[in-house]
Amino acid sequence: MDKLEEAISILKYDDAGLIPAVVADSENGDVLMVAYMNAESLKRTVETGMTHFWSRSRKKFWMKGESSGHTQEVKAIYVDCDADTLLVKVIQHGAACHMGYRSCFYRKLSDDGQWETVAEKIFDPDAVYKKGK
Amino acid sequence: MDKLEEAISILKYDDAGLIPAVVADSENGDVLMVAYMNAESLKRTVETGMTHFWSRSRKKFWMKGESSGHTQEVKAIYVDCDADTLLVKVIQHGAACHMGYRSCFYRKLSDDGQWETVAEKIFDPDAVYKKGK
Repeated sequence: MDKLEEAISILKYDDAGLIPAVVADSENGDVLMVAYMNAESLKRTVETGMTHFWSRSRKKFWMKGESSGHTQEVKAIYVDCDADTLLVKVIQHGAACHMGYRSCFYRKLSDDGQWETVAEKIFDPDAVYKKGK
Repeated sequence: MDKLEEAISILKYDDAGLIPAVVADSENGDVLMVAYMNAESLKRTVETGMTHFWSRSRKKFWMKGESSGHTQEVKAIYVDCDADTLLVKVIQHGAACHMGYRSCFYRKLSDDGQWETVAEKIFDPDAVYKKGK
């Protein structure tokens, strides 16, 4: 087993073999999204330098940006104390969110208890993702 | 149902009734930790202004800092596009990590594929948490 395989093997995956990965902007620290990796998608992420995840809904590997071109260049990967969560710092090209916002966390709980949109869309999802796809 | 209860009810919880919460430093953006909330711990977080989680291992509510005094003052709560992950921005008193580091993400994957500690401890866990507890 090489060192990278060993580093990947010590992580604590859930019953589905997944580990959550927080993706943050390496330049300003903004949390962009959270997605799930399995051992193989983490390996692909390290080897290609671009984030790869496992889609729980589509049950397949996906590279962030494979449809939109909004890829994420990996600058650093961290693991937490319990080895059950990853933090990936990236250079985000375009937007992280398929809804058109730079970050998926574009809604904030207001003082009167409502989820309010607090960001502006930076692209039009209908133009980037083919409709009906 | 009041507005806050409605805002809490629209979230997508997993089969165990939990939703992951990324906790980030409201001042410098650093990702400090990821823990899990259920509807009740989120309600307590909003109502008290201090982060409350659900411990999956101990199967109980916990307020961050209840043992260590290293509490988290909530400045803002965000939800992601899929409504299945929270981002909580906090003022962190002391350290977020029970291992003594300010952030739980104190290990970074090195170029040769090893988890290297890249932060300094800011407190001694043995002195803060009673030994053998």
